[in-house]
Amino acid sequence: MRLRKAVITSAAPNQRSLPLQRFVDRDGVEKAALKIIIEEVVSAGVEEIALVICPGDQAVYQTAAEEHAPRLHFVEQNNPRGYGDALHRAAAFVGKDAFVHLVGDHLYLSRTAKRCAQQLVEIAAAEDCSVSAVQPTREAMLPYYGVVAGRRVPQQNRLYEIEHIVEKPTPTEAEQKLIVPGLRAGHYLCLFGMHVLSPMVMEVLAKQIAETEQGKSIQLSPALDQLARRERHLALEVHGDRYNIGVKYGLLNAQFALALSGQDRDEVLAQIVELLATSQRNP
Amino acid sequence: MRLRKAVITSAAPNQRSLPLQRFVDRDGVEKAALKIIIEEVVSAGVEEIALVICPGDQAVYQTAAEEHAPRLHFVEQNNPRGYGDALHRAAAFVGKDAFVHLVGDHLYLSRTAKRCAQQLVEIAAAEDCSVSAVQPTREAMLPYYGVVAGRRVPQQNRLYEIEHIVEKPTPTEAEQKLIVPGLRAGHYLCLFGMHVLSPMVMEVLAKQIAETEQGKSIQLSPALDQLARRERHLALEVHGDRYNIGVKYGLLNAQFALALSGQDRDEVLAQIVELLATSQRNP
Repeated sequence: MRLRKAVITSAAPNQRSLPLQRFVDRDGVEKAALKIIIEEVVSAGVEEIALVICPGDQAVYQTAAEEHAPRLHFVEQNNPRGYGDALHRAAAFVGKDAFVHLVGDHLYLSRTAKRCAQQLVEIAAAEDCSVSAVQPTREAMLPYYGVVAGRRVPQQNRLYEIEHIVEKPTPTEAEQKLIVPGLRAGHYLCLFGMHVLSPMVMEVLAKQIAETEQGKSIQLSPALDQLARRERHLALEVHGDRYNIGVKYGLLNAQFALALSGQDRDEVLAQIVELLATSQRNP
Repeated sequence: MRLRKAVITSAAPNQRSLPLQRFVDRDGVEKAALKIIIEEVVSAGVEEIALVICPGDQAVYQTAAEEHAPRLHFVEQNNPRGYGDALHRAAAFVGKDAFVHLVGDHLYLSRTAKRCAQQLVEIAAAEDCSVSAVQPTREAMLPYYGVVAGRRVPQQNRLYEIEHIVEKPTPTEAEQKLIVPGLRAGHYLCLFGMHVLSPMVMEVLAKQIAETEQGKSIQLSPALDQLARRERHLALEVHGDRYNIGVKYGLLNAQFALALSGQDRDEVLAQIVELLATSQRNP
């Protein structure tokens, strides 16, 4: 499996300004969140990227992508029907190729010299199948994620055969169906927002879209659940952390994490300490 | 003097995305930088605001301003000739009225219950003249600011009669012309990016623009220097801090300062400590 294509979804109307938010990256260079996300997939060998966007956002995203703009194919999501529908809009771009998929509102910070997308793409290439990045996550966070059930691949560290996927399970449901042997008690494998997917996912999504009544939203997790029943689908615990920049203080956290793990660590720590020393509560 | 109008300049082509950057404000509400800046002047009684922008930015700024959008008058700066020129583009909007002027790439954090713009507008109304906000600043920072020379107004704390204004003076020039009696040694009164200006400044700028050869940039400090020679012009040390969001890590610093002085202080401190505990340098 050779991965040349990526699909990044960034079409939620209330989140359209997130990819334009400015960061200083680990290398000390200022850039938009979108550019950091693009660099994530380009570092893994991706050459062409479909960006699924709200109608009208093409020009500003093109500017934010800087020198990567020529790699971008824009797909507008008119009459949006949810995350799964957004991904499916890139079906023509994907064609018969496997592809990398990232969401446009997360930044990833690797804990090794290889970026998270690189770790994922290497396993997908070696195993020649779909691989979703996952992270062991405390039970309290289940309401925010898709959760994977599976069993460890023998002789392989951090790799699992996916059996099924449930979106935002209740604690009871999780305890009954989603416990993964070998994980710490009270932890589940939650999706990380980063996947290598076989083109079959587009067929599954098309079927789901056709069968779902108008006005109901198409989610991705049920399609991934279907995909795992049809084809081999692995989950990889990547060495890294994800930062959701769409939540309250998500931008601050992501920027702080980038700075602490990058070349400007000492400078930023000094600034933070100075602010702590001189700040006061709102009078 | 009654102040109903404000002019916010945000037309530097390399900074056009700054007003769109998202923050959580002291009140815990997510909003764009532009909205925080608009709230600063609206809190001081301003009703109508001219925004000087790059051509094409009106729609995104209007969205970012949320419920304040109806207050906005957009003035596009075609063929930009610098900061002074940008301000002068709002001459027709200003007419014969005094106005508040802020730059679009700074956020202000008051150390009292009154916001910085309120402090400034109250003095301008009481003294019935132009007032520029200033802050005592270390000599090392002179290359970044316009610097004010003046003498303390008797019986008035933190208020100065401006004698002249020099943009980015050298240390020698500052020592010869800009020492203000009563300030700490090695400190100068630097402009804070916030002014109440008499409409006369537009005449001064028009003259400067006419007399400056094409291709040369029109700065604001020389016009303010002229204005102080023609009319009474005061400088006020406001109780507050400015955060330039256009510099490297400026967004991080401003967001962190807002959070530390606001209602989410404890929550954000806990997040920062957790990140410090788990972060590692780039491997």
